Amino acid sequence: MSLSPKHMNGSKNVEGSDRKNLIPFASRLYEGRALAQDVWSIYNALNLPADCINLGQGYMNFSPPKWVTEAANDALQVVATNHYSHPKGRIRLREAIKAFYEPSFNRSLDPETEILVTSGANEGQYSVFTAFLEQGDEVIMFEPFFDQYLPSVTFNGGKPVYVPLHPHTDKVRPTSNDWTIDFDELRRAITPKAKMIIINTPHNPVGKVFTKEELEKIAVIAEEFNLLVMADEVYDCLVFDGKEHVRFATLPGMWDRTVTVLSAGKAFAATGWRIGWLIGPPSIIAPTLAVTTRIVFCTNSPLQEAAAVGLEQAKERNFFAIQNREYEERRNLLTSAFDKLGLKYSMPEGSYFVLLDISRVDFPDNYPFPKSVEGRGRDFRACWFIAMELGVSSIPVSEFYCEQHCTIGESYARFAFCKDLDTLRRAGERLQGLSKYIK
Amino acid sequence: MSLSPKHMNGSKNVEGSDRKNLIPFASRLYEGRALAQDVWSIYNALNLPADCINLGQGYMNFSPPKWVTEAANDALQVVATNHYSHPKGRIRLREAIKAFYEPSFNRSLDPETEILVTSGANEGQYSVFTAFLEQGDEVIMFEPFFDQYLPSVTFNGGKPVYVPLHPHTDKVRPTSNDWTIDFDELRRAITPKAKMIIINTPHNPVGKVFTKEELEKIAVIAEEFNLLVMADEVYDCLVFDGKEHVRFATLPGMWDRTVTVLSAGKAFAATGWRIGWLIGPPSIIAPTLAVTTRIVFCTNSPLQEAAAVGLEQAKERNFFAIQNREYEERRNLLTSAFDKLGLKYSMPEGSYFVLLDISRVDFPDNYPFPKSVEGRGRDFRACWFIAMELGVSSIPVSEFYCEQHCTIGESYARFAFCKDLDTLRRAGERLQGLSKYIK
Ligand SMILES: Cc1ncc(COP(=O)(O)O)c(C=O)c1O
Ligand SMILES: Cc1ncc(COP(=O)(O)O)c(C=O)c1O
Repeated sequence: MSLSPKHMNGSKNVEGSDRKNLIPFASRLYEGRALAQDVWSIYNALNLPADCINLGQGYMNFSPPKWVTEAANDALQVVATNHYSHPKGRIRLREAIKAFYEPSFNRSLDPETEILVTSGANEGQYSVFTAFLEQGDEVIMFEPFFDQYLPSVTFNGGKPVYVPLHPHTDKVRPTSNDWTIDFDELRRAITPKAKMIIINTPHNPVGKVFTKEELEKIAVIAEEFNLLVMADEVYDCLVFDGKEHVRFATLPGMWDRTVTVLSAGKAFAATGWRIGWLIGPPSIIAPTLAVTTRIVFCTNSPLQEAAAVGLEQAKERNFFAIQNREYEERRNLLTSAFDKLGLKYSMPEGSYFVLLDISRVDFPDNYPFPKSVEGRGRDFRACWFIAMELGVSSIPVSEFYCEQHCTIGESYARFAFCKDLDTLRRAGERLQGLSKYIK
Repeated sequence: MSLSPKHMNGSKNVEGSDRKNLIPFASRLYEGRALAQDVWSIYNALNLPADCINLGQGYMNFSPPKWVTEAANDALQVVATNHYSHPKGRIRLREAIKAFYEPSFNRSLDPETEILVTSGANEGQYSVFTAFLEQGDEVIMFEPFFDQYLPSVTFNGGKPVYVPLHPHTDKVRPTSNDWTIDFDELRRAITPKAKMIIINTPHNPVGKVFTKEELEKIAVIAEEFNLLVMADEVYDCLVFDGKEHVRFATLPGMWDRTVTVLSAGKAFAATGWRIGWLIGPPSIIAPTLAVTTRIVFCTNSPLQEAAAVGLEQAKERNFFAIQNREYEERRNLLTSAFDKLGLKYSMPEGSYFVLLDISRVDFPDNYPFPKSVEGRGRDFRACWFIAMELGVSSIPVSEFYCEQHCTIGESYARFAFCKDLDTLRRAGERLQGLSKYIK
C-alpha cells in the first residue's frame, strides 16, 4: 500500500467552503493504523535488493499439490463451478469440511448451519467482527498479534484490548511455548465492555501451540465474562515434535461460544486462492453468513471445488502428515543456521514462523536507514540491515504489538520457513555473514 | 440463506440473567433487511420444481470463453499466481485494465493509484461504503435497485434514500428507457446529510441505459451537493441496438468524484470467479484500498491472471462485439415469446434482464402459495405461480423497492436472459401456457 498524504485529502473537520473540493473519507480510517504504512510495504521486494531471499512474508515459494490444482482445472471445465456459489459455500466443500473436521471437533457438524465458507480466513474473521461488534465493544487479543486483527476490529467499532504473551526465553534453548500468558494480567484487562477474545493457536508469529491447561484457563474466563471466542487455528495442520493441537471449541462448554477459523491457503499451500472456512454454532454462523453475503456475496467457485477435493483426498494420501514432516524439516534447516551463529530463537512448535532474538545483532547506528524505519523499534532497523547487507528479509516483531508493549517485540525478527529447502539453505548460508555483527 | 429465528438468538435488549446464554449479534444486522428471507432463497432451485428453467438468478448457464479458462489453468501451474497478490491487485491485471479502459475513460489511468482489483464488484462496492460512510450519511439510490446496495449501505452506518424510476410504459412497445427520473423528486430527496449517489447504468433490473442528458443532469446535482458518485457500470459491455453507453466519470468535472464499478463476472461469463475492479481518482481509490486490504487482504490470484488475459486479448478477438450480438439474440428470443403472448415488457437497451408486465396475468387467488410469498407484493405470487405452473422462474421486482414505493414494482417480473438459446427457446415455449391466464 502506498497511501501518501497527498491522496488522502479527507478530514473529519472539513466543513463550509472547503467542503466543495473534498469528499472526506470515513473517520473509521483514522483508527487501527488503517492508513499507516505497514511492515509489508516497507519490507517489500520493491524496496529490497533484487536478489533478496524473502523470508518476510508468510507465503510459500512452492505450489499447491498437483492433484489439488488439477481439481481446480477440472472445475474450470464445468459451467456451474464458474458461476456464483451459495453464500454459505459450495455444498461439496461444506460436505468435505464436515467429513474432515468431525473427528477433531469430536461432534457432528451440520453443513447448513455450522459451516461457512469465506474468502480467505481473513474475510471470515472480518465478517465475524461485523456480525458481532457494537460501537465500543472490547476485543481481547494476545500480543504479538496477526496484524489484520487490529483494523478489522476498529473498522467495526470495536476496541482492541492487548494482553502480551511474555517471552520467558532466558533458557539456553527456549521454545515458542516459553511465551506465556499472565492470567492475572488477562483478568485485569477484562472490563464490562469485553465482548470477544481471539486465541490464535498455533500462533503467528510466536509459533506457540497453546497447551490444554492454558486453553482451559481461558475457557473459564470466557464462560465467566460471557465472551465470544474467535479460535484462529489456521495453522492447525502445522504442529511439530509430536505436540498436540487442542481445538478450543472442544473444551467443555466452549462449542456454543466459539467460532473456529481455518484456511485452505495454509492447508494446501494456496494462499492466493482466498478460500477459508468458519466452524461454529448456528448462533454465530447465521449472523456471520448474513454479513459475508453482503460483503462478498460468495467466495470464488472453482477454487472452492479444488479445496473440497483437497479435504476429500487428504486422508487417503496421508497428505497432512507428509506436509507436516516437510515443514518440520524446513524449520530444522533454518534454525540450524541460527544455531551455527549462536543466536537464540524460540523453537516453534507450530505454524511456519520462527522468532530470532536479534538483541545481540550489532548493526552500525549510522547505517543509511530509510525514513520508513526511523523512529520505529530497534527491530525495524535490524531487519532492514539484515535484508540489505545479507540479502534475507524478515519482519520486525514490534509491529505486532500496541505502542505501550512494543518494546517486548523489539528483540525479535520473524522469519517464515514456508519455503523450499534449497531457498532456506541459501538463506542460512547468507545469514552466516551475521557472525561479524554479533556482540 | 436460511436464517431461522431459532438461530438468531441475539438481541439488543438482552441483559441480566439471560445474557449468560446469549452472545448478541450487532444491531447493524437489524437494518437493511439483513436478516429477512431474500428473494433468492424463496425462488431458489430447492423450492421450485426440479425441472424448472431458472431465469431468476442473473448468472449464465454457459462457461467463460475457453481461452480465458485456459489462462486460469496456466496460472495454476505457476507458483506465484497461487499465492497472495498485492492488495491493489496483480500488476498484470491492473496493466490490462489500464490499457483496456483508457480509451473509454478518455484519459490515462495510473495502475498504482487509480485502479483497484476487488473480490467481485460487490466487495468493491462494500469497501467504498466502508471507506466513505459516516453514521447517518445518506446514500441516494434509484429504484428498483440492486438489492445488495441496501444492507451494504446500512452495515456501514449509511442511510438509503430512495428515488424511484417512473415506468412510463403505457406505450404499445415501451423500452427500458421509458423508465425515467423525476429530477424535482431527486432534488427534493437530497438533504444536507447526502453523501453519495449510486448510478447503475446499464441498469439491473430495468435494462435502462441512462442517456447523456440524464447523466448530465445528475452531474449538475452531484457537483452542487458535493456527492461522491458510485457509477455501477458492471453491464457496460452489454448495450444493444447500437445505443451508446456513456461513462459517468467522463462527464466534465465528474472524474474527481466518481468511482466506476466493473466486473469480470459480467464481462467474461464468470460470475463465480469473484473478480471486479474499481476505477477512480486516488482520493477515492486510496481509502478504498485501505479498507479492502483489511476485509479480504487480496483477491484470488489465478483468476485475476485469467481476467488479465481476457482484457488483453478481447480486442483482437473482437470478443465483446461478438458477445454483445449473442446477448442481443438471446434478448430477442425471449421477448418474442412475450410478444406472442401479447404481454407487455420494457425492451431492455442494456444488461441481461427484461421486465415483464405481469398485471394481466390472472392467477387463481386460492392457489396454494407458500408462507414466504404471502403478505408480499402481487408480483411475489405471480412469480411463484409462473414457476410452479409453467416451470420458468423469475424474480418479483417489488423486492427492489423500499416499502413505500414497492407498489411500482408489483407489476413486474424480472427475467434473466444470460442463458443459452436452447434454454431460452424452451422457456419461451413453456411460457406460452400463460395465455390461458391472461385477462
Ligand atoms: C494467524 C492468521 N490468521 C489468519 C490469516 C489469514 O489467512 P487467509 O490467507 O486464509 O486469509 C493468517 C495469514 O497469514 C494468519 O497468520
Ligand atoms: C448492478 C449490479 N452491480 C453489481 C453486481 C455485482 O457483481 P459481482 O458479481 O462482480 O460482484 C451485480 C450482480 O448481479 C449487479 O447486478
